[in-house]
Amino acid sequence: MRQSRLFGKTEKTDRPDVTLTSHKLLTKGGFIRESVSGRYFLLPLGMRVANKITDIIREEMNSAGAQEMISPTLHPLELWQETNRDNAGNFGLMLVTDRRGARFALGGTAEEMFVDVARKFQLSYKDLPFNIYQFSTKFRDELRARGGLLRVREFVMKDAYSFDVDATAFHSTYQTMAQVYDRCYTRMGLSAKQVLADNGYIGGEYCHEYIVDCSAGESRYLETADGSYCAHEDVATVGLVPMNSEEPLEDMEVITQPQWVKSMADNIKHYGEPEWRYLKNVVYKKIDTGDLVIVTIRGDLEVNKTKLEKVLGAIELLEEATSDDLARLGVKPGYVQAWGHTATYVADLSLKTVRNFIGGQKTDTTDTRNVNYGRDFAHPIEADVALAQPGHVSPDGHLLHERRGVEVGNIFQLGTHYSSAMAGATFMAKDGSLQPYYMGCYGIGIGRTLATIVEIYNDEKGIVWPESVAPFKVHVVALNTDDQALRDWADGIYENLLSRGIDVLYDDRDVRAGEKFADSDLIGIPYRVVVSKKSKESGLFEVVSRSSGETHYLGEDDLINRLTS
Amino acid sequence: MRQSRLFGKTEKTDRPDVTLTSHKLLTKGGFIRESVSGRYFLLPLGMRVANKITDIIREEMNSAGAQEMISPTLHPLELWQETNRDNAGNFGLMLVTDRRGARFALGGTAEEMFVDVARKFQLSYKDLPFNIYQFSTKFRDELRARGGLLRVREFVMKDAYSFDVDATAFHSTYQTMAQVYDRCYTRMGLSAKQVLADNGYIGGEYCHEYIVDCSAGESRYLETADGSYCAHEDVATVGLVPMNSEEPLEDMEVITQPQWVKSMADNIKHYGEPEWRYLKNVVYKKIDTGDLVIVTIRGDLEVNKTKLEKVLGAIELLEEATSDDLARLGVKPGYVQAWGHTATYVADLSLKTVRNFIGGQKTDTTDTRNVNYGRDFAHPIEADVALAQPGHVSPDGHLLHERRGVEVGNIFQLGTHYSSAMAGATFMAKDGSLQPYYMGCYGIGIGRTLATIVEIYNDEKGIVWPESVAPFKVHVVALNTDDQALRDWADGIYENLLSRGIDVLYDDRDVRAGEKFADSDLIGIPYRVVVSKKSKESGLFEVVSRSSGETHYLGEDDLINRLTS
Repeated sequence: MRQSRLFGKTEKTDRPDVTLTSHKLLTKGGFIRESVSGRYFLLPLGMRVANKITDIIREEMNSAGAQEMISPTLHPLELWQETNRDNAGNFGLMLVTDRRGARFALGGTAEEMFVDVARKFQLSYKDLPFNIYQFSTKFRDELRARGGLLRVREFVMKDAYSFDVDATAFHSTYQTMAQVYDRCYTRMGLSAKQVLADNGYIGGEYCHEYIVDCSAGESRYLETADGSYCAHEDVATVGLVPMNSEEPLEDMEVITQPQWVKSMADNIKHYGEPEWRYLKNVVYKKIDTGDLVIVTIRGDLEVNKTKLEKVLGAIELLEEATSDDLARLGVKPGYVQAWGHTATYVADLSLKTVRNFIGGQKTDTTDTRNVNYGRDFAHPIEADVALAQPGHVSPDGHLLHERRGVEVGNIFQLGTHYSSAMAGATFMAKDGSLQPYYMGCYGIGIGRTLATIVEIYNDEKGIVWPESVAPFKVHVVALNTDDQALRDWADGIYENLLSRGIDVLYDDRDVRAGEKFADSDLIGIPYRVVVSKKSKESGLFEVVSRSSGETHYLGEDDLINRLTS
Repeated sequence: MRQSRLFGKTEKTDRPDVTLTSHKLLTKGGFIRESVSGRYFLLPLGMRVANKITDIIREEMNSAGAQEMISPTLHPLELWQETNRDNAGNFGLMLVTDRRGARFALGGTAEEMFVDVARKFQLSYKDLPFNIYQFSTKFRDELRARGGLLRVREFVMKDAYSFDVDATAFHSTYQTMAQVYDRCYTRMGLSAKQVLADNGYIGGEYCHEYIVDCSAGESRYLETADGSYCAHEDVATVGLVPMNSEEPLEDMEVITQPQWVKSMADNIKHYGEPEWRYLKNVVYKKIDTGDLVIVTIRGDLEVNKTKLEKVLGAIELLEEATSDDLARLGVKPGYVQAWGHTATYVADLSLKTVRNFIGGQKTDTTDTRNVNYGRDFAHPIEADVALAQPGHVSPDGHLLHERRGVEVGNIFQLGTHYSSAMAGATFMAKDGSLQPYYMGCYGIGIGRTLATIVEIYNDEKGIVWPESVAPFKVHVVALNTDDQALRDWADGIYENLLSRGIDVLYDDRDVRAGEKFADSDLIGIPYRVVVSKKSKESGLFEVVSRSSGETHYLGEDDLINRLTS
């Protein structure tokens, strides 16, 4: 490709509204342009990278036996109604009605569509397993888009759906897909960690995100030093150890307490005991019904709303209660009682690790002490709803560290979540009975993966593409092009490389050398070959590796050998 | 690919609602499945064909210097407002509003988007020409979908947009694209004719459709025997020759006419003169304003509404007037007068080919005769609005024949239609002035092309894919697979072909031979190789060409040579 003909131009100055590295470099380098917030054009350079990422994924999926197909983008709304996902506004489903009054969802994910196509066939156990996937545009009506391709409202995703006869068979499919993901990311130069995560809106019992550590990421997870435990904050379990099991159980008693003791800090000041010694009550409100939920938790821990919602069986169900909501309980903030209110009470498992809590029935002038969970009060729901933090330990007792990264893919166990909800989504089992398929689904966002590669592979001059996904392999930079003979000679070198099947961007533009080198560094093609008066005279071409900066001087034949090897 | 693992099954019986050949064969063969009317899944077999078609188009586009990119699917409605296309309901634009109230069109065509991305750059004449294209899903809110992939509501299209400095430069781009289209269709085995057509909703001054003749097609065009003239009925010009130039002009007179003379047939019966001798008035109503349009035309010709609309400068503007509409003119059907009503009068050019018309001021008991256009009456608008029919002559005087086919692609001159309408859609010309780009656009629908190939390449047993787009090159059909040793040996043959890079579907299913052969014929892979007990014993494999039926018996080495050549 001649750079003079390339659509899309580099920019010299930073845009003030662009802060993320990948957004900045992809925009300046002429890989992407914003249409409106959260919606992007991939320009030809960006498209070349996206196509290489797509090809890698397609190759790896196919070699694992997955089969590419495509579903319509507009999903009949009836299908989403079958699984009760049609009203999940928080997922950002977009709806459209056609001229004949038919209603559709713009595909945000395609579980229903793939189950629907599967149930069009009379399948038997002999037809399973199969794994079908597509590359298609997905829509999410995000309230907040981030800069660049990291969180957008429209993106191309590879989404795969597997169909197995049972959990055992599925387990092997899931492992196969995990291996496919490892190979894909490795080929793209990404070190993506498999992190236990929350199924959320997708449903099912467990899933894993693939996270590439980087500061631009929005995914926070907890990991032990040796990687023995690695989980997203939405699911990470706080390893619980008894705090004071040596203490004898004391009798609960009401004690007077000065009126100034309100907050946790006041407690510590007044009693001189550590945070874990106090009972804490956190109140949430169910968004749909207004009902209140009180979580009682050990004083040193916070509630993780996502974990709590999962316990209560709904996504995006809760919001923090306001003082108005507390007024309905008859209390002011700070005076919520650990038992006695009309509300749904949830006990975090941490309550079982402390003997003789302080707190629980606070008034203006009194509180209770030596309160013991199970003896003095107990809640109908006991669950792990604590937010894991660095410094906590994992369930296997190792110290947790906080990590942050970009989720570049995910794999979900779905079980029979969809196939049970949708009529006729069955296969004939060996015994002749009709059974729902045991499913999984597997996503990779192409644009986000592309941006993540840039977040990892860059330096102060620009992008440093791994060769596997680079828009071109070689950047031929012609200098002294005001000399027609030299220009013709440079054209010849370019044509020669092209004819050898080498993937070349040829900077044949009429701009000064400094600008060409700066653009070349910014665009980040793996090898730069300078074609100049000097190279014509010496017969040697300067070849610079973008990643190592290493420079070699090679004759034309050696150059071709090097670039075709 | 092992057929036992292939998702999608063949069907044995015809579905009663499926009439088109391509719809029937693609459904029975397991290439497609309907989601809802006009929206299809491409199953893995169909996807393989679609990918091959896509690859051919991509290769040919790229080798002509076009550059692949991608635009968002949701187009900000403001862009469509800039060009006044947002309210063109007849085009079937679908609209969607997001949670923040932003409105979007679901891309039906992407002229505005590509102009919008171009105007984000400061372009100079040195940056032109360029041609940028995408493969993306398009949406059309068609009131009527046809069976299968021929007319759908959602489809993947390659759409390209070219940017040139002026008409002269554009002409060369247009020719280049015409050559690209010829090469694409030829490689796919299609003989696609370039037919002059109507720009319609897209705008611009001229365009060509690529039409593959076949009975399933909805595109009707007229062509001379030698192909010197070839035009879609919406634009085809009726070659006009004087009908009676030897007659002297007579004086117009009012004549009595029996009351039973009402229709054209009555005229002929009463006067004994041929159809062309009579004046005919055809009335249309403007849909938006209700205003009436009267077209006066030679009695043997029909009005072409599309041509008339183009003359009046609007798309899908007119509908046929009802008797209620005629009542507003104060007349009954059959009594419309060629002058004197309050309406927009349009004269077809055919009025100039006849001397001494009969008709024009019909009453219950009288009419006029020896009416001469230009002398006795004349209309403010004179234009070619006649429908070309077989038996008419072309403008160059040759007999027109009627053809029918499927439009598999189109190329449009857009001129500055979009770049003038959209602010800032300019480049800096050599003289330093800002000029609108001179544009063209170029579409190929992937699914429709796929279905058209099937319409052309089939026989009573099924599809007969051209090798270039076949889902697989070779269909290995294993027989006697109840014998484990034979099954293992057949697996080995399959693995061997695979390892040579041969694209193989391997029928390893436990079904009887007859079913395997019938499915093989239905699916239509170019070469069928039978692997059986007999071939193991003889060392020779039966190789049958699906298209010619020719059978060869080859040893394994010869087989591999044949299939890799």
